[in-house]
Amino acid sequence: MKIAIDAMGGDYAPFEVVKGVCLACDEFDNVDYLLVGDQAKINDCLVQLNRELPKNVEILHTDVFVTMDDDPMLVMKGKENCSMRLGLEKLKQGEVDAFVSAGSTGALHTASTLIVRRIKGVRRSAIAAVIPLKKPMLILDSGANPEVNADILNQWAVVGSAYVNQMFSVESPRVGLLNNGTEEHKGTTVVQEAYQMLKNNENINFVGNIESKEIFNCPCDVLVTDGFTGNITVKLIEGMGKFMFKSIKNVLYTNIFTKISAICLKKPMMKFKKDFDASEYGGAPILGLLKPVVKAHGSSNAYEIRSTIKQAIQFHETGIIEKVANALK
Amino acid sequence: MKIAIDAMGGDYAPFEVVKGVCLACDEFDNVDYLLVGDQAKINDCLVQLNRELPKNVEILHTDVFVTMDDDPMLVMKGKENCSMRLGLEKLKQGEVDAFVSAGSTGALHTASTLIVRRIKGVRRSAIAAVIPLKKPMLILDSGANPEVNADILNQWAVVGSAYVNQMFSVESPRVGLLNNGTEEHKGTTVVQEAYQMLKNNENINFVGNIESKEIFNCPCDVLVTDGFTGNITVKLIEGMGKFMFKSIKNVLYTNIFTKISAICLKKPMMKFKKDFDASEYGGAPILGLLKPVVKAHGSSNAYEIRSTIKQAIQFHETGIIEKVANALK
Repeated sequence: MKIAIDAMGGDYAPFEVVKGVCLACDEFDNVDYLLVGDQAKINDCLVQLNRELPKNVEILHTDVFVTMDDDPMLVMKGKENCSMRLGLEKLKQGEVDAFVSAGSTGALHTASTLIVRRIKGVRRSAIAAVIPLKKPMLILDSGANPEVNADILNQWAVVGSAYVNQMFSVESPRVGLLNNGTEEHKGTTVVQEAYQMLKNNENINFVGNIESKEIFNCPCDVLVTDGFTGNITVKLIEGMGKFMFKSIKNVLYTNIFTKISAICLKKPMMKFKKDFDASEYGGAPILGLLKPVVKAHGSSNAYEIRSTIKQAIQFHETGIIEKVANALK
Repeated sequence: MKIAIDAMGGDYAPFEVVKGVCLACDEFDNVDYLLVGDQAKINDCLVQLNRELPKNVEILHTDVFVTMDDDPMLVMKGKENCSMRLGLEKLKQGEVDAFVSAGSTGALHTASTLIVRRIKGVRRSAIAAVIPLKKPMLILDSGANPEVNADILNQWAVVGSAYVNQMFSVESPRVGLLNNGTEEHKGTTVVQEAYQMLKNNENINFVGNIESKEIFNCPCDVLVTDGFTGNITVKLIEGMGKFMFKSIKNVLYTNIFTKISAICLKKPMMKFKKDFDASEYGGAPILGLLKPVVKAHGSSNAYEIRSTIKQAIQFHETGIIEKVANALK
């Protein structure tokens, strides 16, 4: 098995990416790696890390890469030799089995859809995010498709279920539809129509409409929604989490007594914060494609890159995509 | 001035409503009150409260009321004599100046739109909710209209600005558009179109697209969105707030040391929790109507009913509706 990694994508690329690949190499040494990016810069990183290029790592050199501000279409026309594009081409050609990038989400989604292409029968590929709860909840789409129809939501339920089943070992994943009420008639026309399709879909375990206030009670394993609502949901959880932890910190700094309390609370508080950290689950898979592509968080550090690589390995090994393709035949 | 209150609406009606009206009577004694509901039950509540009916409170008797499970249209046809309907009729006829109910949101929105009617030029009335931040943020619509067009969002920006200006004394309220990115081209077709209309609207102070993760940094005073997204946003904040406070409680109960710490933290923690309590701001006004209607939270206690009555008094006194009507002429 061989995994390609975009060495130039992410806020801390290439250093954290190269370091992350080295971590992965040490841990998963039966895998080959293809680092796509600037050879000289990658070598500089290795010097900083005080290590040689591991034997199972190959470098595919390019000094072109997409930035966060670039138009996503530049990968297709204008920056054809960028690291993201070259990695995806290798994936398409079957020279590698999965691709990982912490670069621009829009560019990765656009380019992977156009280059790697979708599973037959899947009308749109979705970016799936994990909400870190007692049991991880997969939410899709989390931002790639602001406007969808009922048919697309229904397909995502199948794709998402297969992913959760294989990756999180959930027997019959419960699928929920994000809605503004639990009743059947609630929501927009598209959502109402999706409800009926999901209810009649025998390939999934549909548990009905899910209100956002219930998310934290783990009411389902796969939460289906359009990319607009999904993006707002995922980012709100992120923003509110930061706000709450900051506010708690302020509470702990109120006076000398609370500061002493803070010492006693440090360990359980750190555990709570860690339980609530999505990066433990790696990155966001792009679901509905013919090959595994995983988006690592833009601000990934080396450990998060390593976790995303681990996820990509598992994504390939479990054969999820073949299973989805068969289910949709 | 006279305020009508639906004595039968809410999870703890009529007791908490009657108690709340008594609290309001004590505090705002220059106002007259009309309690609409079951006379015998209201009297029972007064007996329990060990007090007489205050002089400035009148009772309009009816033993019919809408439940949370009733179809909202029942207020219009089937339960014409329910407390909610009678109160709204009194408001329409000018016998009272504002109406407060903790009953079914759907029923209140439907009935108030059909009975009290909308301001000329306002195509849809919206339920506005307050997000309790350092500075309160008004979000509209929070659930009444899952599907809207750009024109409606633009009108809500005007209506919401007038409300925030008068009720929270904000000079030139900053209006934001909830979106899945900050760039002008982001979002659904409706949201993209709304962006252009808001940008060109000289009656408001438009500050651009707001991502949900930024909400807690108080980027605007009025956040405009459709009722589907608004509902999901408001309920997610509610649900996540509960989850976080419960998790912190668990952290504090970890061991003997954390339990001792909990004692030191009680006061600042309570303050943080209170700062984050939307009920301090009263209920959710239905904006765009010709008269003030305010929805109290379904689970309101007496103090929250009192706060919502206070809000209704201020809503009437500030003449917001006349100002909006003039702005839209």
